[in-house]
Amino acid sequence: MKLIILKENLNKGLNIVGRVAGKNLTLPILNNILIEVKKNFLNISSTDLELGIKYWTLVKTEKEGSITVPAKILMSFINLLPDKKINIEAKNQDLFIQCEENQTKIKGQSPEEFPIIPIIEENEIIEISAPVLCEGLSRVVDFSILNQARPEISGVYFNFQKEGLVLTTTDSFRLAEKRITLIKNPTKNISFILPQKSTRELVNIFSEYQGNIKLRVSPNQVLFEYLMTETSHPEIQIISRLIDGEYPDYQSIIPKKYEVELIIEKDQLINQIKTASIFSGKSNEIKVKTDSKKGGIEILSQNPELGENKGFLPAKILQGANKEMEIAFNYKFLIDGLNNIKSKNTFIGLNGEEGPAVIKPDKDTTYVYVVMPIKSS
Amino acid sequence: MKLIILKENLNKGLNIVGRVAGKNLTLPILNNILIEVKKNFLNISSTDLELGIKYWTLVKTEKEGSITVPAKILMSFINLLPDKKINIEAKNQDLFIQCEENQTKIKGQSPEEFPIIPIIEENEIIEISAPVLCEGLSRVVDFSILNQARPEISGVYFNFQKEGLVLTTTDSFRLAEKRITLIKNPTKNISFILPQKSTRELVNIFSEYQGNIKLRVSPNQVLFEYLMTETSHPEIQIISRLIDGEYPDYQSIIPKKYEVELIIEKDQLINQIKTASIFSGKSNEIKVKTDSKKGGIEILSQNPELGENKGFLPAKILQGANKEMEIAFNYKFLIDGLNNIKSKNTFIGLNGEEGPAVIKPDKDTTYVYVVMPIKSS
Repeated sequence: MKLIILKENLNKGLNIVGRVAGKNLTLPILNNILIEVKKNFLNISSTDLELGIKYWTLVKTEKEGSITVPAKILMSFINLLPDKKINIEAKNQDLFIQCEENQTKIKGQSPEEFPIIPIIEENEIIEISAPVLCEGLSRVVDFSILNQARPEISGVYFNFQKEGLVLTTTDSFRLAEKRITLIKNPTKNISFILPQKSTRELVNIFSEYQGNIKLRVSPNQVLFEYLMTETSHPEIQIISRLIDGEYPDYQSIIPKKYEVELIIEKDQLINQIKTASIFSGKSNEIKVKTDSKKGGIEILSQNPELGENKGFLPAKILQGANKEMEIAFNYKFLIDGLNNIKSKNTFIGLNGEEGPAVIKPDKDTTYVYVVMPIKSS
Repeated sequence: MKLIILKENLNKGLNIVGRVAGKNLTLPILNNILIEVKKNFLNISSTDLELGIKYWTLVKTEKEGSITVPAKILMSFINLLPDKKINIEAKNQDLFIQCEENQTKIKGQSPEEFPIIPIIEENEIIEISAPVLCEGLSRVVDFSILNQARPEISGVYFNFQKEGLVLTTTDSFRLAEKRITLIKNPTKNISFILPQKSTRELVNIFSEYQGNIKLRVSPNQVLFEYLMTETSHPEIQIISRLIDGEYPDYQSIIPKKYEVELIIEKDQLINQIKTASIFSGKSNEIKVKTDSKKGGIEILSQNPELGENKGFLPAKILQGANKEMEIAFNYKFLIDGLNNIKSKNTFIGLNGEEGPAVIKPDKDTTYVYVVMPIKSS
């Protein structure tokens, strides 16, 4: 294997595939990156057996071949080189790198030891805009939770319908749902549960990309593919294992009506909740109280050891102006939901001390966040 | 105690005194801030018994008095309030705070329980520009080290001479010395050792200030004082315990001549050392080799498990162009020194495999960094 590549191009690829390599103690080969040169493409890949990432770039090939080397060493090293041409050559399982006045040898391993990253043969192709997918996922991914007893909620539920894609997560205390439109819809309903870690990597990697992502789904795996604009050759492939199981039928949990509905300025509300949280103690409990006389809500918190706090915020009450209620919430769950509202004002729907509350943008109907109150013991 | 204060003014003070409060488990009162109102001044203070910080600001006093409350609660709370007037009142060891629509009670403690921060009566006053002191300290403070066997090197050595102030630190592997000029010199030589932690707080607090700091030194303590521009009343007082003991007579360690002297571009050198460090392994060892033929130095590193690296850098050789030497260094020590060189080029003085090497700016003579090679075993 022998090639010439610009530092910038190699670095870009390493930042993409290097993310999953280098964290495995039981199977050291997974700390490596596989480097392959074929025709005029360099392909680098990494895998943690659940998630595989492949990246291609055009290079000047002098000799085809392959090798694997430790990801961390290669990444730190390439990152420090000047922005120039790099000469790379594999000889006897050593990788020789020469860049200007710098000469390096990195000890590698035979590429045969590297696990094979599976290929998905499925024909059905779905197409999504990368920025739309990343924005949608980033608003739900935090609410999935590693749950050994209920592995099906440990990931993001992708539900492709004819009208578009519905993304859902829940940790059983709150639930987030985001609807996005597709560039190319599937011909039939397709759904799967993507592990949280794979989802995070997907968002991290594609958040720099502006084009479209193609999806192929097999019973156990999914492939997210991004093509080079010039050649239509793949540039990035992300292949992830899917989580087994049925996603819970959650639609009945999302309230269709509310006892009290109000519109409130979001940043003020977040600030007031944070202020109250200082006195919430270990339970994280704060109270939301509707105040029909003053036309708004009060946020309250109290802790016998620390002290107490009370703040009022004006709100536009759309529904239930005459209903007084005081509901206990985990303040973190409220802030998590509000942080995903991108508009100035937020809609809040309340259903009493035990019913699910809803946070959603005041106008955009594609996002909804449901949160359960803390039940009084 | 009852007063009105602008949020901004209170917040500024809390950010200064809050730094030392809130980390003590055995003496919980040290987690508190002492708040006192006298005439038209609010004074807030904190201490960890080694270091005390006091801050004053003008307020509208309605009633004099004092209280102590937990620093962390008060700071988090005030920080979240809007930039408005705050009404503060102490009643029955509770602190009541009201700001716009927000009402809070913080449980406090009696001020009698708070330790007294000592006063320094010494008359001799030294005066230093705050930015000059902070810049000088920041270039030496990192090289002092907590050392139970040799407590005297656990701090920064302040040596006031008639020509100015010499600041020195060492961890016995390297030594840094910075000379600065004073606004008002002492009438006699004064020296003391300031604990590393106090030095760091001093730099953090005064790095925002442009005026002069007044110093008073007693046998066991030092006071750094900053006055309000309008009233000449103290704004900040930092009182620190000093470290007992004689600072080592280090002047003989700083080489006066070198076998090889060279001038080299600093950023390139740092980058080349970092590149080599990837292959340095656990010993952190890299080698610096003079190359008279090519007119520069080679940086080398080698590790049987990882690989090896070699890079050449051109240099202007002032002295010893015909002397070939290869010296092993801990790469971290070299980078630490080079990071304190502010000029584009750095002077490097080498004294063979076992002699102390020197890093200093190519023109400024007020800073010197001495580093010992790794001795071959």
